[in-house]
Amino acid sequence: MLARHARGLGQGPLAFGPLMQLVRNLSEWATVDPQKLSGSAPGTCANLVSGRWQPSRESRLLPDPLNGQPFISVPHTQPDEIAPFVESLRAVPKTGLHNPLKNPQRSLTGYGWLLGLRTALHLHLHLHLHLHLHLHLHPEYYGGERTGIPRGVRFLARGFTVPGDHPGQTSSGNRWPYGPVALITPFNFPLEIPALQLMGALYMGNKPLLHVDQRVSIVAEQLLRLLHHCGMPPADVDLLHGPGATCGAVLAAAQPRSTLFTGSQRVAERLAVETHGKVFLEDAGFDWKIMGPDVRDVDYVAWQCDQDAYACSGQKCSAQSMLFAHRSDGGRWELFANLPSAGAKLLFGGKPLTGHSIPGVYGAIEPTAVFVPLEEALRPEHFEAVTTEVFGPFQVVTEWRDGQLPLVLEACERMTNHLTAAVVSNDINFVQTVLANTVNGTTYAGIRARTTGAPQNHWFGPAGDPRGAGIGTPEAIRLVWSCHREIITDFGPVPPASALKLS
Amino acid sequence: MLARHARGLGQGPLAFGPLMQLVRNLSEWATVDPQKLSGSAPGTCANLVSGRWQPSRESRLLPDPLNGQPFISVPHTQPDEIAPFVESLRAVPKTGLHNPLKNPQRSLTGYGWLLGLRTALHLHLHLHLHLHLHLHLHPEYYGGERTGIPRGVRFLARGFTVPGDHPGQTSSGNRWPYGPVALITPFNFPLEIPALQLMGALYMGNKPLLHVDQRVSIVAEQLLRLLHHCGMPPADVDLLHGPGATCGAVLAAAQPRSTLFTGSQRVAERLAVETHGKVFLEDAGFDWKIMGPDVRDVDYVAWQCDQDAYACSGQKCSAQSMLFAHRSDGGRWELFANLPSAGAKLLFGGKPLTGHSIPGVYGAIEPTAVFVPLEEALRPEHFEAVTTEVFGPFQVVTEWRDGQLPLVLEACERMTNHLTAAVVSNDINFVQTVLANTVNGTTYAGIRARTTGAPQNHWFGPAGDPRGAGIGTPEAIRLVWSCHREIITDFGPVPPASALKLS
Amino acid sequence: MLARHARGLGQGPLAFGPLMQLVRNLSEWATVDPQKLSGSAPGTCANLVSGRWQPSRESRLLPDPLNGQPFISVPHTQPDEIAPFVESLRAVPKTGLHNPLKNPQRSLTGYGWLLGLRTALHLHLHLHLHLHLHLHLHPEYYGGERTGIPRGVRFLARGFTVPGDHPGQTSSGNRWPYGPVALITPFNFPLEIPALQLMGALYMGNKPLLHVDQRVSIVAEQLLRLLHHCGMPPADVDLLHGPGATCGAVLAAAQPRSTLFTGSQRVAERLAVETHGKVFLEDAGFDWKIMGPDVRDVDYVAWQCDQDAYACSGQKCSAQSMLFAHRSDGGRWELFANLPSAGAKLLFGGKPLTGHSIPGVYGAIEPTAVFVPLEEALRPEHFEAVTTEVFGPFQVVTEWRDGQLPLVLEACERMTNHLTAAVVSNDINFVQTVLANTVNGTTYAGIRARTTGAPQNHWFGPAGDPRGAGIGTPEAIRLVWSCHREIITDFGPVPPASALKLS
Amino acid sequence: MLARHARGLGQGPLAFGPLMQLVRNLSEWATVDPQKLSGSAPGTCANLVSGRWQPSRESRLLPDPLNGQPFISVPHTQPDEIAPFVESLRAVPKTGLHNPLKNPQRSLTGYGWLLGLRTALHLHLHLHLHLHLHLHLHPEYYGGERTGIPRGVRFLARGFTVPGDHPGQTSSGNRWPYGPVALITPFNFPLEIPALQLMGALYMGNKPLLHVDQRVSIVAEQLLRLLHHCGMPPADVDLLHGPGATCGAVLAAAQPRSTLFTGSQRVAERLAVETHGKVFLEDAGFDWKIMGPDVRDVDYVAWQCDQDAYACSGQKCSAQSMLFAHRSDGGRWELFANLPSAGAKLLFGGKPLTGHSIPGVYGAIEPTAVFVPLEEALRPEHFEAVTTEVFGPFQVVTEWRDGQLPLVLEACERMTNHLTAAVVSNDINFVQTVLANTVNGTTYAGIRARTTGAPQNHWFGPAGDPRGAGIGTPEAIRLVWSCHREIITDFGPVPPASALKLS
Repeated sequence: MLARHARGLGQGPLAFGPLMQLVRNLSEWATVDPQKLSGSAPGTCANLVSGRWQPSRESRLLPDPLNGQPFISVPHTQPDEIAPFVESLRAVPKTGLHNPLKNPQRSLTGYGWLLGLRTALHLHLHLHLHLHLHLHLHPEYYGGERTGIPRGVRFLARGFTVPGDHPGQTSSGNRWPYGPVALITPFNFPLEIPALQLMGALYMGNKPLLHVDQRVSIVAEQLLRLLHHCGMPPADVDLLHGPGATCGAVLAAAQPRSTLFTGSQRVAERLAVETHGKVFLEDAGFDWKIMGPDVRDVDYVAWQCDQDAYACSGQKCSAQSMLFAHRSDGGRWELFANLPSAGAKLLFGGKPLTGHSIPGVYGAIEPTAVFVPLEEALRPEHFEAVTTEVFGPFQVVTEWRDGQLPLVLEACERMTNHLTAAVVSNDINFVQTVLANTVNGTTYAGIRARTTGAPQNHWFGPAGDPRGAGIGTPEAIRLVWSCHREIITDFGPVPPASALKLS
Repeated sequence: MLARHARGLGQGPLAFGPLMQLVRNLSEWATVDPQKLSGSAPGTCANLVSGRWQPSRESRLLPDPLNGQPFISVPHTQPDEIAPFVESLRAVPKTGLHNPLKNPQRSLTGYGWLLGLRTALHLHLHLHLHLHLHLHLHPEYYGGERTGIPRGVRFLARGFTVPGDHPGQTSSGNRWPYGPVALITPFNFPLEIPALQLMGALYMGNKPLLHVDQRVSIVAEQLLRLLHHCGMPPADVDLLHGPGATCGAVLAAAQPRSTLFTGSQRVAERLAVETHGKVFLEDAGFDWKIMGPDVRDVDYVAWQCDQDAYACSGQKCSAQSMLFAHRSDGGRWELFANLPSAGAKLLFGGKPLTGHSIPGVYGAIEPTAVFVPLEEALRPEHFEAVTTEVFGPFQVVTEWRDGQLPLVLEACERMTNHLTAAVVSNDINFVQTVLANTVNGTTYAGIRARTTGAPQNHWFGPAGDPRGAGIGTPEAIRLVWSCHREIITDFGPVPPASALKLS
Repeated sequence: MLARHARGLGQGPLAFGPLMQLVRNLSEWATVDPQKLSGSAPGTCANLVSGRWQPSRESRLLPDPLNGQPFISVPHTQPDEIAPFVESLRAVPKTGLHNPLKNPQRSLTGYGWLLGLRTALHLHLHLHLHLHLHLHLHPEYYGGERTGIPRGVRFLARGFTVPGDHPGQTSSGNRWPYGPVALITPFNFPLEIPALQLMGALYMGNKPLLHVDQRVSIVAEQLLRLLHHCGMPPADVDLLHGPGATCGAVLAAAQPRSTLFTGSQRVAERLAVETHGKVFLEDAGFDWKIMGPDVRDVDYVAWQCDQDAYACSGQKCSAQSMLFAHRSDGGRWELFANLPSAGAKLLFGGKPLTGHSIPGVYGAIEPTAVFVPLEEALRPEHFEAVTTEVFGPFQVVTEWRDGQLPLVLEACERMTNHLTAAVVSNDINFVQTVLANTVNGTTYAGIRARTTGAPQNHWFGPAGDPRGAGIGTPEAIRLVWSCHREIITDFGPVPPASALKLS
Repeated sequence: MLARHARGLGQGPLAFGPLMQLVRNLSEWATVDPQKLSGSAPGTCANLVSGRWQPSRESRLLPDPLNGQPFISVPHTQPDEIAPFVESLRAVPKTGLHNPLKNPQRSLTGYGWLLGLRTALHLHLHLHLHLHLHLHLHPEYYGGERTGIPRGVRFLARGFTVPGDHPGQTSSGNRWPYGPVALITPFNFPLEIPALQLMGALYMGNKPLLHVDQRVSIVAEQLLRLLHHCGMPPADVDLLHGPGATCGAVLAAAQPRSTLFTGSQRVAERLAVETHGKVFLEDAGFDWKIMGPDVRDVDYVAWQCDQDAYACSGQKCSAQSMLFAHRSDGGRWELFANLPSAGAKLLFGGKPLTGHSIPGVYGAIEPTAVFVPLEEALRPEHFEAVTTEVFGPFQVVTEWRDGQLPLVLEACERMTNHLTAAVVSNDINFVQTVLANTVNGTTYAGIRARTTGAPQNHWFGPAGDPRGAGIGTPEAIRLVWSCHREIITDFGPVPPASALKLS
């Protein structure tokens, strides 16, 4: 949303000045300057617990993705250092820092400082850009990232009332926080995911412990420093830098009442077991795109395919993983060069990138597509391999002919993860058939359909799983960061004693 | 709700006739007649799978709670017999039997046969009564049980739309079924809980496997036979009689996409681990009642206490487990005889019932109350024992004085389970303070507050736990039996090729 | 909805019996038997006021539409007899008979008797059929009429809460009744419109004065007698038979706080002036249907056109008044015989029906269609005539070619009334363009689009007019029969005196 | 809301700078500088129509409320000059400037420039302050005025979907604009009311003609100039300065599809007749406050009474007009000095203010209270006089004793206008009784209850009148500035021809 604001601001002569001023104000709150980070002047991070910034015993030096030089020092917190984090979480009441009846004014205060935040976040994007792994590969992408600070905080806690059974009685449904919660997010969206989920957690009255992948947790730290600067009480959020195992130790000891995890499926499932299911998950995405028999506007559709499959090097959980192209029109096949008539083949790509100084640990390969015939993909011995998410610039391509839609839908049904999907068609009957028989959580339909519509005006998250998290909308915030509490007020009048019967 | 209808019907001369006729129609669908069940003519149960009623290899004979004679033969299905159940669940598409885009007319068909069902269920209550364990102890209770068939099925699947980012785009939030699901319910409400949750599962488009505690699963079987009679397709629900371990084996093999479990906390937590958290739980209830300093209408309040603590022999998850009485007014203490001034003491009860032929396996003790001083209860060495749910006619009583409200709230905060609660007070500031600082899911407040307000016009379920289930309202059905699916339609027009940039 | 139930019931063996029994029960509450009404044994009607059935000084004899014999005697109440009606309305408190805080149990009581009503209404349909003017012409139509008794009455009064500005404060939005209201309905749907609107008025807590066109008000009377029989308190609704002028006199003297009027535009506008706009209106409908360039399934589309234009002799406010056919495909023109190439011409019909004994006062003409070229229709000197509603089996047909869509939309924009409309197309871009540029209240889109989708699962009513009424859905009931009332509770704590400043 | 933001901003060091910068930017868009307006350098206003600022033939010079010198020249537009306004409104399509399907991106664009607006409005308040009549009397008040720019514009157009009757069908409820509308507002809130309603009108897609009381319309003009500066297209709003009669002439000729009028009851009723009820009204307020038998915190309650009755010289439609004090506790009477035991008497005030240079046309009297015994007030010959709104610092006081609550409620029932009200009590049974039996639209309850809670977090508007407008919340915007449009999509598949029957 911010980018949008920024654009709006940029267009108006009035608002431009303040933004420039904010840029100058960077030194007031940031502890690192992305323009100056380098091997010779590395940035330093710190943990935040109970409102105090604190170092850890050990640190880890991160290499600059541009040249491999160490440029950031981040706490490598160990399990024997977690006591303050556990204590801090345990001190949070189950009723949260605020709820519809407790400290409602916190929504207002937060409201105030958020206005400052919204404006300031534009600046923060620049910090983000420099730190993100793929800056040099896909700089344009970041213009589209959204920081999405929702509005109307108090309306998120909207409840409802229903008339009761007798005079004096009313039942009401309320949204209640969980109190102490954990928020664990991955490397690939170091600002967007933590910012959106953190704000949701705070809005609903929770106190979150935040853990971000160590490689990019510096971004989250700077975000928190900015929030403090804008007025957020320092003890509202704890931040733990360090390896995932340390975070796991905190969870085991502090037992937050709910945990939002975004990351790999393997860790997600382990966390689900360890917390006895007290989680919301946004894990693997094997995101398909089905082209309808009516595909047209080939330039646009092909461009969107490239965006979906390869932007950000495909390192988005919403990246296009498998394309079902329709073969009724041969011309459409130009979408992909060198299409083989049968059998799996490399369509393009597959080689490492050269001529760069990106450290090997980050990896860098060409955009790649592999063709697999539909019937072959569906064979039990192939299916799992074909439908395994590869977190990089890679996709599987297959084709279907008239009459084969049931096979396409069977493939979608047999897949394991159901995050995003796309039905590229304006044939409304075709679209409705595919939608009616699939379950992916964020599904685009229409000639402009895409798989990577990250949180803007809509919910983003998997479907078909009771643990599925959402992000980006009021519904998502209410689902993930609050629960239903029913309060029935029954103030009388009271029936006379003569009307009472024991049972 | 039915009881209410029944009452309404009973009052009007018109509707009475049809009900009588339904009673006469019992033989058309029921396979047991509660009036005739006995040791010499025991009833027989069968499993239902893929629309066919089937026996199991072994059976178990249940003793009549009135005289100990075996009177019901129920399948004792073993793990080596589960293949058809697994196969049946696995055949269910993830998109369910219907969803907002698939087979919407099923809501209507269901609608039609539900009208018949609603009327017919009144009769079914009689069957229920006879079969329920405690019939002879608390027959009056059943007049109040509700069968709660919700109305307006299609409105449960109401979605929403939000304008998009450009012409042709709209985002929509939809409720989607899970497809294959499991529903596991306990002995104490053999009709109400299965009926309400089963209907919710069906309304939203799922196919449930139903397992009810073997001692009362005959009731669920008769319910299904009635539903078939009213028009429900026989393959819409599977029913598994037998031990819990067999049900667990089905879950492990079939992996339903979600499971609703109502029952003990121990089994609930194990199930949460085994399913990796794909559960909704309604487990233990340690339900407190706090009396405010302004308690009045003592006859009514005391009567409600007895109802909450001892009706149905306290075998309700919503039974009053702990009472915080206020001591400002000594007269109020007459609520309880022989109150000790300090130290834990038996207030009343504590002995086995005599002069009955109830088999020992069922148990039968006097209504019992134990007093524990508040400070003693809060000691770490006592707290767990004092706040452990006893599934019988038992409660802990304590007292608090002016100034001790923080101790009362501390006790509530430290408890583990948060199902129902009551704040007996019309002092609105007191009420708001207690509500603001507690999290129980179904909380009554006001001079008529109670802990056992089973599903009528309001949500019933725990709060503060992301796995918490709800029952009894549209919100509960939508939460437990469906998930959010976002569909973004984006039909164009498409931007010109010249406007496309690769990133 | 009933028809649907009835169907569901008919399919199940269980529910059929009770319905038959209800038929036999007719004599318990009905004062006329449609099977026996005739010139020799005419039915007699009475007014209902303050719970008492009362005659009027004069009566009017209605001729049987089948043979012209007088067969119903209906009160011809005169302005000098209205005092009891005025007094009855004036005695109603503005807070209604119930509201969310007053007598909430009335929703439940009503709930009870409505179950009986729902079942019983099936029978009532038979009464309706016989009395309706066009029984012999279009009997099949009535199978589709819905009596639509909504469910979940108390949920119609659902309110909402939002956290306040400081502890102790919450704001809530509530639906509040108007108290004394009037409900005025026309001849063409003597059961459906009064039943739906009456129930909505009652559900929300109002006391309505009901006036139905004198020619069919006998149906409303029988409905009220049935409602009384099912348990409705007799003083909850007043019924006034007689000419519209008498009803107007009551309104002028009693000043109900809101009036729902369904009928002619002329009367609607006069009423709007006389009540100073305290009205909701559902008046004229000039309902267009636009065929897209992709029309197919010609049999179906043509059949739907005939239904929309001519069923019930076109005497529905939703009848198809103007058809915009697309000319890209000559074959489609077979829809209409003898299409002229230019200039207005009679396509078919235009003559009186013969060979019947329907009294002349009712009128009876052939289904008729007139073709007018689009450009001619748009001329200022023609437009008003072409777009005037004819309440009979009549439609205007025009055609449009590729490139002329702006002219079609201009025609829609320039029309005065905006009730129903249809866009017959599965071309989603075409559909979205037409929908985006029109305002009709109930608009069908898609190849199955129609103009006459009377209240079933959707709102029915005009759009684009702040006085526009709705019927048939919870939203409609809430809009028409209740208003928003905001209650802000603010119970403290109170700031200290030292913090108070005068301003 | 802005004041709140401003406070939030003021507290944080970051945001303070930009605000200061905005103050300096005044010259970029404002055409008058409130610091420099004077008799020697009067400000000049202009009409805005179709995006162009235009003078009128005649002007009117307004006297400075501080010293009577003419200091503002405002167009005195005459009926013979209205053609461009009529033409501009008539050119607006009924589908508005945007709707959920047309130009949805306008919500986003607007969103962008609103961020700038929100920040900038703080400055605008200073302009407002200087121009407002009572600046020197009650300057503190303005700190509390809210400009309330709502957030999440696109969510205001949120619609809903419900599954249909057969595959391919879905019904949806949508909010649709009226297109050309009028907005007429009074002198007493020259910024708040126009700003809130104007924004609501724009958000929903309407094009408003704005007319503000000529004495303060300069404020609205500066608001529009600021909006243009922030990016609003100049043709989105027309502004007409001049007498009300000229505005009436525009309405009569242009016939906007809806009109929001805030102002006197007399004009409101005339407008309702002239527009045939196509209005939403917020007119007279005769706002009562009932003190419960439990009143305490007398300092606070008395302070709130003074605020409600006399702040802004009582020139708010929500000002406390009548106080029902409870007499159970004599001490409470100190609220009012010199209370007479019987008969109507002046409690205090009643004299003109002296020692000022406010022109006589504005008026200036002391805060005044008159006591009238309850029984006297209720007499038919007194009631109308006692319950007539006086738009100044004046209130009627009465008292009630235990047992007289029915008389109090009778007084509330018999009043004509139902805008705001207050129930000052924490006795929840008392509060519920009063709320259940009254209908005022914005009603505060609780010990902190007040009558003048202007739009902050809640709806503000009358209840019990179908023409009643609301302001300040999403519900208000949706009610007043949009209507319900139901779209049923029905895309097939189509039944076979053999299944079609004519009727």
